[in-house]
Amino acid sequence: MFYHVKELQYTAKPSQPDPVYAKKLQEVLGGQFGEISVMMQYLFQGWNCRAEGKYRDMLLDIGTEEIGHVEMLATMIAQLLDGAPVQDQEEAAKDPVIEAVLGGMNPQHAIVNGLGAQPNDSAGYPWNARYTIASGNLLADFRANLNAESQGRLQVCRLYEMTTDPGVRDMLSFLIARDTMHQNQWMAAIEEIEQTQGSIVPSNFNQEYEKQDVSYSFMNFSEGEDSSNGSWANGPTLDGQATFQYVQHPQPMGQKPTLQPGPASLHGTNPEELRVKQGLGKMEPLQ
Amino acid sequence: MFYHVKELQYTAKPSQPDPVYAKKLQEVLGGQFGEISVMMQYLFQGWNCRAEGKYRDMLLDIGTEEIGHVEMLATMIAQLLDGAPVQDQEEAAKDPVIEAVLGGMNPQHAIVNGLGAQPNDSAGYPWNARYTIASGNLLADFRANLNAESQGRLQVCRLYEMTTDPGVRDMLSFLIARDTMHQNQWMAAIEEIEQTQGSIVPSNFNQEYEKQDVSYSFMNFSEGEDSSNGSWANGPTLDGQATFQYVQHPQPMGQKPTLQPGPASLHGTNPEELRVKQGLGKMEPLQ
Amino acid sequence: MFYHVKELQYTAKPSQPDPVYAKKLQEVLGGQFGEISVMMQYLFQGWNCRAEGKYRDMLLDIGTEEIGHVEMLATMIAQLLDGAPVQDQEEAAKDPVIEAVLGGMNPQHAIVNGLGAQPNDSAGYPWNARYTIASGNLLADFRANLNAESQGRLQVCRLYEMTTDPGVRDMLSFLIARDTMHQNQWMAAIEEIEQTQGSIVPSNFNQEYEKQDVSYSFMNFSEGEDSSNGSWANGPTLDGQATFQYVQHPQPMGQKPTLQPGPASLHGTNPEELRVKQGLGKMEPLQ
Amino acid sequence: MFYHVKELQYTAKPSQPDPVYAKKLQEVLGGQFGEISVMMQYLFQGWNCRAEGKYRDMLLDIGTEEIGHVEMLATMIAQLLDGAPVQDQEEAAKDPVIEAVLGGMNPQHAIVNGLGAQPNDSAGYPWNARYTIASGNLLADFRANLNAESQGRLQVCRLYEMTTDPGVRDMLSFLIARDTMHQNQWMAAIEEIEQTQGSIVPSNFNQEYEKQDVSYSFMNFSEGEDSSNGSWANGPTLDGQATFQYVQHPQPMGQKPTLQPGPASLHGTNPEELRVKQGLGKMEPLQ
Amino acid sequence: MFYHVKELQYTAKPSQPDPVYAKKLQEVLGGQFGEISVMMQYLFQGWNCRAEGKYRDMLLDIGTEEIGHVEMLATMIAQLLDGAPVQDQEEAAKDPVIEAVLGGMNPQHAIVNGLGAQPNDSAGYPWNARYTIASGNLLADFRANLNAESQGRLQVCRLYEMTTDPGVRDMLSFLIARDTMHQNQWMAAIEEIEQTQGSIVPSNFNQEYEKQDVSYSFMNFSEGEDSSNGSWANGPTLDGQATFQYVQHPQPMGQKPTLQPGPASLHGTNPEELRVKQGLGKMEPLQ
Amino acid sequence: MFYHVKELQYTAKPSQPDPVYAKKLQEVLGGQFGEISVMMQYLFQGWNCRAEGKYRDMLLDIGTEEIGHVEMLATMIAQLLDGAPVQDQEEAAKDPVIEAVLGGMNPQHAIVNGLGAQPNDSAGYPWNARYTIASGNLLADFRANLNAESQGRLQVCRLYEMTTDPGVRDMLSFLIARDTMHQNQWMAAIEEIEQTQGSIVPSNFNQEYEKQDVSYSFMNFSEGEDSSNGSWANGPTLDGQATFQYVQHPQPMGQKPTLQPGPASLHGTNPEELRVKQGLGKMEPLQ
Repeated sequence: MFYHVKELQYTAKPSQPDPVYAKKLQEVLGGQFGEISVMMQYLFQGWNCRAEGKYRDMLLDIGTEEIGHVEMLATMIAQLLDGAPVQDQEEAAKDPVIEAVLGGMNPQHAIVNGLGAQPNDSAGYPWNARYTIASGNLLADFRANLNAESQGRLQVCRLYEMTTDPGVRDMLSFLIARDTMHQNQWMAAIEEIEQTQGSIVPSNFNQEYEKQDVSYSFMNFSEGEDSSNGSWANGPTLDGQATFQYVQHPQPMGQKPTLQPGPASLHGTNPEELRVKQGLGKMEPLQ
Repeated sequence: MFYHVKELQYTAKPSQPDPVYAKKLQEVLGGQFGEISVMMQYLFQGWNCRAEGKYRDMLLDIGTEEIGHVEMLATMIAQLLDGAPVQDQEEAAKDPVIEAVLGGMNPQHAIVNGLGAQPNDSAGYPWNARYTIASGNLLADFRANLNAESQGRLQVCRLYEMTTDPGVRDMLSFLIARDTMHQNQWMAAIEEIEQTQGSIVPSNFNQEYEKQDVSYSFMNFSEGEDSSNGSWANGPTLDGQATFQYVQHPQPMGQKPTLQPGPASLHGTNPEELRVKQGLGKMEPLQ
Repeated sequence: MFYHVKELQYTAKPSQPDPVYAKKLQEVLGGQFGEISVMMQYLFQGWNCRAEGKYRDMLLDIGTEEIGHVEMLATMIAQLLDGAPVQDQEEAAKDPVIEAVLGGMNPQHAIVNGLGAQPNDSAGYPWNARYTIASGNLLADFRANLNAESQGRLQVCRLYEMTTDPGVRDMLSFLIARDTMHQNQWMAAIEEIEQTQGSIVPSNFNQEYEKQDVSYSFMNFSEGEDSSNGSWANGPTLDGQATFQYVQHPQPMGQKPTLQPGPASLHGTNPEELRVKQGLGKMEPLQ
Repeated sequence: MFYHVKELQYTAKPSQPDPVYAKKLQEVLGGQFGEISVMMQYLFQGWNCRAEGKYRDMLLDIGTEEIGHVEMLATMIAQLLDGAPVQDQEEAAKDPVIEAVLGGMNPQHAIVNGLGAQPNDSAGYPWNARYTIASGNLLADFRANLNAESQGRLQVCRLYEMTTDPGVRDMLSFLIARDTMHQNQWMAAIEEIEQTQGSIVPSNFNQEYEKQDVSYSFMNFSEGEDSSNGSWANGPTLDGQATFQYVQHPQPMGQKPTLQPGPASLHGTNPEELRVKQGLGKMEPLQ
Repeated sequence: MFYHVKELQYTAKPSQPDPVYAKKLQEVLGGQFGEISVMMQYLFQGWNCRAEGKYRDMLLDIGTEEIGHVEMLATMIAQLLDGAPVQDQEEAAKDPVIEAVLGGMNPQHAIVNGLGAQPNDSAGYPWNARYTIASGNLLADFRANLNAESQGRLQVCRLYEMTTDPGVRDMLSFLIARDTMHQNQWMAAIEEIEQTQGSIVPSNFNQEYEKQDVSYSFMNFSEGEDSSNGSWANGPTLDGQATFQYVQHPQPMGQKPTLQPGPASLHGTNPEELRVKQGLGKMEPLQ
Repeated sequence: MFYHVKELQYTAKPSQPDPVYAKKLQEVLGGQFGEISVMMQYLFQGWNCRAEGKYRDMLLDIGTEEIGHVEMLATMIAQLLDGAPVQDQEEAAKDPVIEAVLGGMNPQHAIVNGLGAQPNDSAGYPWNARYTIASGNLLADFRANLNAESQGRLQVCRLYEMTTDPGVRDMLSFLIARDTMHQNQWMAAIEEIEQTQGSIVPSNFNQEYEKQDVSYSFMNFSEGEDSSNGSWANGPTLDGQATFQYVQHPQPMGQKPTLQPGPASLHGTNPEELRVKQGLGKMEPLQ
């Protein structure tokens, strides 16, 4: 169960309105790697957690913090939209600054939301749940989380560079710091699990059942051998089990597929009939 | 530019048809972490790659391999659908085995695809491009890739357990082995970049501009302190810069937000008017 | 900012697992009118609220409660999935009960989520932000909220009828009661605003600017006049301004549209050229 | 079955082209609360209607009218796009007016639609069927309809303010008037049903089966008690059954959830194994 | 403007309920090639039509007919859902017929729609506007229409084979006949335009501006030369301008791409820095 | 299995950056009829192909070529984005050219992709798999392919007109030429199949089972008879079986639908109860 306090986790006050920037800032609110994504991902991982208590507790700690980040961004965006020009285009065209704002802002901020934030990204595309994962395997999911915090911090840093507003930058400097922490946090948690379970997800699938001949081979499918100079093509593998091999000319190991004709009731193209009508004789039987 | 050979990278032949399993197997073809996702993700990362040649080459090597994995799965699914019952439900109800198949298969496999594979997941939801990322930052993207291979191998292992068909298991054992390689590959590439650039993404954002007070604090937002026992709450941080701090009672550091009324032309609720009509007097001015 | 306590708002414990019911229950978690929808809708309305404090406070009260409802449903679903059969279909076919479960459950619950809840609906379709609205007009939004609680309670009642599990029914009886409250709440809030601002949204658009001839006319576009017996076709209008009129034979009041040819550079079909080549002579000029 | 006449329900002729406004106007054609939404919603409610004839007739009357509104908006948008600049950006940059138009218009209007309307919203997002509801419960659905007409009229009024074109305003004044009627219509229909069936949806669920202790309690989950001054926290409830109660300090009534480990074949994280390897001893048994 | 009559275009009455078939039949109502798609596609093509009157009139004739097909399918589905079992799974498991129905029906038909049709496909995925096209080029669009009627008739024929219900088959035999007409109709319209404008879309792009060396070459990108036996690799081209050429070993004609590093403010991976830190020396300058 | 060579199929080098054009060019990369669509459509049709070898081979030839087109467009877009202004809006406003670029470019190109291409369309909407079809019926699918190449060439020609950059135009002239070939190719393949199987899809459904009375009738549902002058309303039908008939006043042939009340457990509106409470007496029994 959750409780709310009115104060924000950190100050969210722009020095002045900027509706075009409001559109851009939506990316880290409702985008693929925005705060709604991490909020939902951590909360669902926590609620579904079948592992020991400290993982569940930690996931709910950070998931709950993220709700507060969504709140900060929504609050900031609503204020950036203050005073957005919502009048006629023709009038606006007389003033190049207003015109640029009108051309660059998201029209839904005015028409749909009355100058409020929306749970969408910077292209106006709505947040959706396929952005998240809760797999039941903590190592897999912590890697998803480290990725989310990496992409997220990258995007916030880019947005920091795209404004000079001290109020906006102040809030972003807080989010960037928290993302520093959260990258550290997931790296620590990953290391903790890798040390006990190994680094290949899932660790408890019997490796005898995999086709081990190709478990450590880098295959050169794009002509040119620059890739042979990488740490992924030489030396010991990261799971400590083998040595990377470089396959210069990868060859197919499978069959040349042929499919049986479908049943008549599905009215697909009947290959036999087609051949006969084209005077090509009967098909050779499938192997 | 690309070339195709008819032989598959590895054999894809089921021992017998199984239309219900075909529906499930769609997950690793067209799902969030299926082969289409990694194919598109690696190819776009490669085509967009502004870094040195060996990274671009390596991305295109693996992206090209993944097209072949999509091909193997599509071929397998088409064969699993051979002989799927497509007749009337009532007749089918007489035979419990047929009936179970009809209840469990995806009706679109027959109606839309005429017993062919589709680029959708196991719930019938279409693959979409928001499953992928190509950010221009290699460390961020390699973490995305490691995550994709971790979730992917986990799902293939689960699907391995859900069948006893030797032909299907044989193909899955190949995909599982390649995912072992690909997890090793991304771990190696990550390590290589972290060693030169540091482990926080992006490494070239000046840390002085982040709110460093909170860059290494774990905040306990969910009551109970099990999370204080984790490696994320004690000891040195993974970026080697500090020590984790545990904040037992995190406090808000921001304002209690108040928003200005919007312009009349947007016809939002006018708070002043509402107060006056309700006999509540004027609002206090915003700070 | 938000805090979390480990205890649920109300008990969520099924008497026994039921993976097929878990699939159905997803509807009120991640569906169009599920708990994620009201959680996000109320929180965004609260964060964007430019009206007086009591509305913002109320919206955040109920939005925060709804996070707890999402938590209860996720917890229930994870437990309903305990012990779901995840083995081979063929083996399963031997036991009709297991087979029915396998046919009826959502395969992603096993493959993707490892027996955890997902933020999707009962068809496996992901929750998305276009389910929500925060328009900046409280009367409009409170009507959206009353609708959401009406559809939501209807769906929970239907799900109550679809199980006999006492533990599940106990939790649903709590959610149904809260929806009773929330319907009452939104009706009260609507009445409060209607009494000061009138019942037509938006109330502050000058009605002189609307085409008042048709502001109170019911138009009979579907042949047959059963609809003339409704309260919407007779008597005073609900806004207290007029009397409903029944238009038995609605007539068009607009032009027969003709469009100008597009520019050559867009390579649309050139109508003139087409006529000439077909020997039909020149087009009549557009009015 | 349907028939079409060439004349529009009302005149749709702009005084001059305005491709940027065409983009904005798409919102009320193909947006969440645009005319396609109400058209589809009313038609499906009518076709699915299991209640008495006058409701079905009324739903098909208004659903059929809405097809004509979609037609008016599509016609208007096609004309607003007349003469849109579709040339090179660099040339355009010489004329600030043309440049502003190019920056602000939706590129798909030219590239995909050859200056025609599209069934999308003002962000270019396609209309989809999850915008609609037909639940089989008339009171629930009429509330959905009242909401749709409220949001819809709000958006059209906003768009009215964003143009000074007399032709566009004339058409919008017609749509605004019809939305006035339609809000009145749904309010009348709602009142008619509430008077016979009560105001809580669904009215025919036995209230004994709901957890009645919390059916009329407002819970203060966001710190601060401004919300206690609302009509939703005091006085008689709107269903006439009780008195609103204000719960100042809501307490959890449920369990602290713990979940069982999943089956080995799903390869989730095994909590026991993790503890043992970390030297933490066995887990306590679940209650 | 549109009018509605109560009678359906053709009888839509199943001989008995069949909720599992109702789910399947949704495909041709709300699927990619269902009746909603053609309804919307023809209406938007008609409303946007800038060509001569007979095309606009014809598009609105058929578009209006399709609304009536949507109506017939919705009506049929609502009746197929009559008497669907909506009780508890466990009880149902006692009767294998009921159990099969429960396992195979779409749970949303009960929970969301109260046994009504929905504007979704057979996988429960909502109809969306990206299924349609109105390009402003009639030849392009009539090919889209011929494709839609071809896929549509194919799907209806498959559904005809999947039932033995005489009432359902009777209605489908009507839809199949109309699709026969509509395929003939679009073929006739295509021939009429091709004869005056040529067969390549768009016909009015000056062919001198295309790279004519490759305008008639079939390129053999998949090893093996079976494809050389097709009518697409030999003989005169269909536009009457040339002869097909077969390119046995297609060669790249373009550059080996290299991209410049991005600006520092975007915090992508800096390739120079990476090389230097890895002791690899400076990059060679880009060509 | 696939191989990659580093050289592009054709040169993709802009003469200078143009981030606004990069946004537009996304349409033919990741839009409904972009290169990803044809790539995926041809590959899946090829992999699923149950017909004779030359069709499968041909589909894989062209599908493989299309991967190379995706590569060319991605490479072009990345270069068009070189040097895109990513700084603060306010600074930018000082220079009208930069400002126009900022207003017109897709913000995700900077924030999400670090100046790389994305698999989305020109409105920023992600590519999804419902853009493709592989039905198992070659004639149906080749019509889908001809449509895709027609819409595709139309869009590329429009984009050609929207730039004067010689490098961009050079690449587009190549794509336009290939689309000329591909339209010819599909027309040839369609003709080949029509000649052996007839022109109505599917050809192997027994026409006796369709309602032949309406198989060749054009119905005049939109008032006005311009449409009677088309080749679709007179003369022999294209399948060679009949003569088109023009139905001036189409009449309904079906019933006036009435639906039975739903089961009480679904809590829909009970029509009987409603009538009784409104004092209207019992409903007449359904026919």
